[in-house]
Amino acid sequence: MKKPTILVCNDDGILAPGIIALATAMKEIGEVVIVAPDSPQSGMGHAISITKPLRLEKCTYKDEFWGWQCSGTPADCVKLARQVILKREPDILVSGINHGSNASVNVLYSGTMSAAMEGALFHIPSIGFSLCDYAYDADFSASMEIAKIIVRETLQKGMPKGTLLNVNIPKGPLSQIKGIKITRQAEARWTDEINERVDPYQRPYYWLMGSFEVLDHGDDTDLYAIEHNYVSVCPIRYDFTAHHVKQELAQWNLTL
Amino acid sequence: MKKPTILVCNDDGILAPGIIALATAMKEIGEVVIVAPDSPQSGMGHAISITKPLRLEKCTYKDEFWGWQCSGTPADCVKLARQVILKREPDILVSGINHGSNASVNVLYSGTMSAAMEGALFHIPSIGFSLCDYAYDADFSASMEIAKIIVRETLQKGMPKGTLLNVNIPKGPLSQIKGIKITRQAEARWTDEINERVDPYQRPYYWLMGSFEVLDHGDDTDLYAIEHNYVSVCPIRYDFTAHHVKQELAQWNLTL
Repeated sequence: MKKPTILVCNDDGILAPGIIALATAMKEIGEVVIVAPDSPQSGMGHAISITKPLRLEKCTYKDEFWGWQCSGTPADCVKLARQVILKREPDILVSGINHGSNASVNVLYSGTMSAAMEGALFHIPSIGFSLCDYAYDADFSASMEIAKIIVRETLQKGMPKGTLLNVNIPKGPLSQIKGIKITRQAEARWTDEINERVDPYQRPYYWLMGSFEVLDHGDDTDLYAIEHNYVSVCPIRYDFTAHHVKQELAQWNLTL
Repeated sequence: MKKPTILVCNDDGILAPGIIALATAMKEIGEVVIVAPDSPQSGMGHAISITKPLRLEKCTYKDEFWGWQCSGTPADCVKLARQVILKREPDILVSGINHGSNASVNVLYSGTMSAAMEGALFHIPSIGFSLCDYAYDADFSASMEIAKIIVRETLQKGMPKGTLLNVNIPKGPLSQIKGIKITRQAEARWTDEINERVDPYQRPYYWLMGSFEVLDHGDDTDLYAIEHNYVSVCPIRYDFTAHHVKQELAQWNLTL
């Protein structure tokens, strides 16, 4: 059987420990092609580069060719991977492993998930993986096993139409993880605490900070799963329509 | 009756003709506060600035105070507007008027819509407006009337929970616009055509290009409405969960 082609992206940069873990795990399953940002791109959302040209350079790791580093955003990486490097669609796209959770509302801001979403638009089975541990030296060994299980099953079953997966993995060894749950995105938000400072020229500037406010205490959410030491697999769609409110809006008085 | 506070944002920059049109229209309805990027931020998606501090400066237009220009992304503008400028929630948030369509898959890449989405997370009734005309000197007069109709109705009825509106307006005078339709997001995508060039040092670089491929020919979509000279009002949700595939995924073999 022909090995599947696996496109590996991320938003933390092409030599972040998380992508090294993910690509290493994927090499047990298929032919791996890595196209990832040349610098960290956290919080980039689904940004694309339309006002500047992009660079694509070979990147070496442990004295061997590792992949292609791109000067653009995670979504840019997927575009260049498909068109310039592969010149066809990969069998699957995996993004991550992100250093930190992309559960709940984080999916909106996540470069990791935007790479996966860009793949899903082209009907490539696409999965974003995140480990709920922000440490640079986080232990990705459990995540590697979990990624293999989910990728193998996705290749087997096929991704439901219009869907991608947002996988969030609790920290700790595999033995402490209780299982995998299919979840929904919890409602939560970053309540912005702005850190105001004054520069040496007496002009103010601002750092975005924030604390995470959970508004949703259902036991079927991604946040609930992670808190209870389960892996969260949340199916995400790129059709953002709030279909359930169309009827309500149709009652509005919107005559010209 | 107390006038509503209307927060006005965009992604084309604080002095783009589209935001001038929108703010001017909104001044007939309420107290307008403008917080918008100091430079164009098209294609920024829901990017936020977490690795650099932000500036916020007063901006003048026609020799009068106009609003606050922010060095960050559209989503950053909403965060700073709420926390630094208003120090409370506005009654409504409007973003735009974008120079160019944000219908269909454009919503994923749109800075205009990410500003509205950032507002919706805080349960602020939030609406993104876009005129389907990329010209800098586009005629925004019909858009101004339409924005007033939709904003007044939203203030009256309240926004359905978890929802924001993506409003796309066909170009041309008001007399040619047939009405307002409640729509859904059409499935489409930018098929990436990469423009490869070689720099003076013989190294390649790439420009993202693309043509718009419509995969969805339903008569209830945003694209259909615009093509047929209707204003599209598409309700968008920030819960991206593909609820309808959860059952299918529950059948997968995902045991650890």
